[in-house]
Amino acid sequence: MKMDIASVNALPYEDFVNIFGNVVEKCPIVTAAVWSRRPFGNLAALEAAINDFIDALPESGKEGILRCHPDLAGRDLQSGTLTQESREEQAGAGMDALNSAEASRMARLNEEYKERFGFPFVICARMNDKANILLQLSERCRNEHEAERARGVAEVKKICRLRLQGLVLTDAPNKL
Amino acid sequence: MKMDIASVNALPYEDFVNIFGNVVEKCPIVTAAVWSRRPFGNLAALEAAINDFIDALPESGKEGILRCHPDLAGRDLQSGTLTQESREEQAGAGMDALNSAEASRMARLNEEYKERFGFPFVICARMNDKANILLQLSERCRNEHEAERARGVAEVKKICRLRLQGLVLTDAPNKL
Repeated sequence: MKMDIASVNALPYEDFVNIFGNVVEKCPIVTAAVWSRRPFGNLAALEAAINDFIDALPESGKEGILRCHPDLAGRDLQSGTLTQESREEQAGAGMDALNSAEASRMARLNEEYKERFGFPFVICARMNDKANILLQLSERCRNEHEAERARGVAEVKKICRLRLQGLVLTDAPNKL
Repeated sequence: MKMDIASVNALPYEDFVNIFGNVVEKCPIVTAAVWSRRPFGNLAALEAAINDFIDALPESGKEGILRCHPDLAGRDLQSGTLTQESREEQAGAGMDALNSAEASRMARLNEEYKERFGFPFVICARMNDKANILLQLSERCRNEHEAERARGVAEVKKICRLRLQGLVLTDAPNKL
């Protein structure tokens, strides 16, 4: 069941980190840091605090966040070691049901991308289907390093937004 | 087996994060970020890069690191959910073998500390025994917030140094 923002604001840091620690994949430090910014007026304010924290990191820190992300259709998916959130998101985009041609294309492009940039291809899987993910991956391999780092971070924020929306009530539903 | 620094420098980011991702407890972003600073001249340079990254974080980020740490002799120890590193360190300091008076004193002081500071008591368990940990905990409860945050971060760095020394060869052993 989703929490309202008053309940979120009342959480001790341990519960806050337990519940929200993976809204940025494998980076509970981000959530743990923004706990200092309570109380949040609404979900958007919590999201903004997270985004501000990410934006204030040095470029190495932003790349560090990207490097905490698993490959799409990669080793962690195959070995069952994805986080629950990633597993559901990758499955939703069909990453667990690639045919062998798609799987080898994905593996080749992931390696090419990581070789070029030194961090993995990150995309908000819930906002893309299989065909689009493969297309974006092949296109983004050609970007410049700095632009692609920024693009990866923008995708991290989209993933974070959707994970947050799965946990916290938005405060203005259906104002018609 | 410990690695030499040349082998460390040759690691792709995925292996680097797998091996060193927990030298700062539950903060693989730190390790993942400093991979950008390769090559490291020696273990001390790797350690310095980690410390520099921590020092450059905003105060909320430093508190975020502290909040990713488990309590000593707390819920994670009792439920078996400590990281391997923490489990070994806490056991080494006798935290898994407190008598009931010690256990309730520790629990009470941990709560008092967290209530006061909004982050957990962090101490390098491998450099302290049970009696000293209880003494420090009761004393540090009386510190000012800012001083105690700095003290916690200093302990994080000591823990990190010892975890690194368990993984990487120092380059000038026994120069007598």
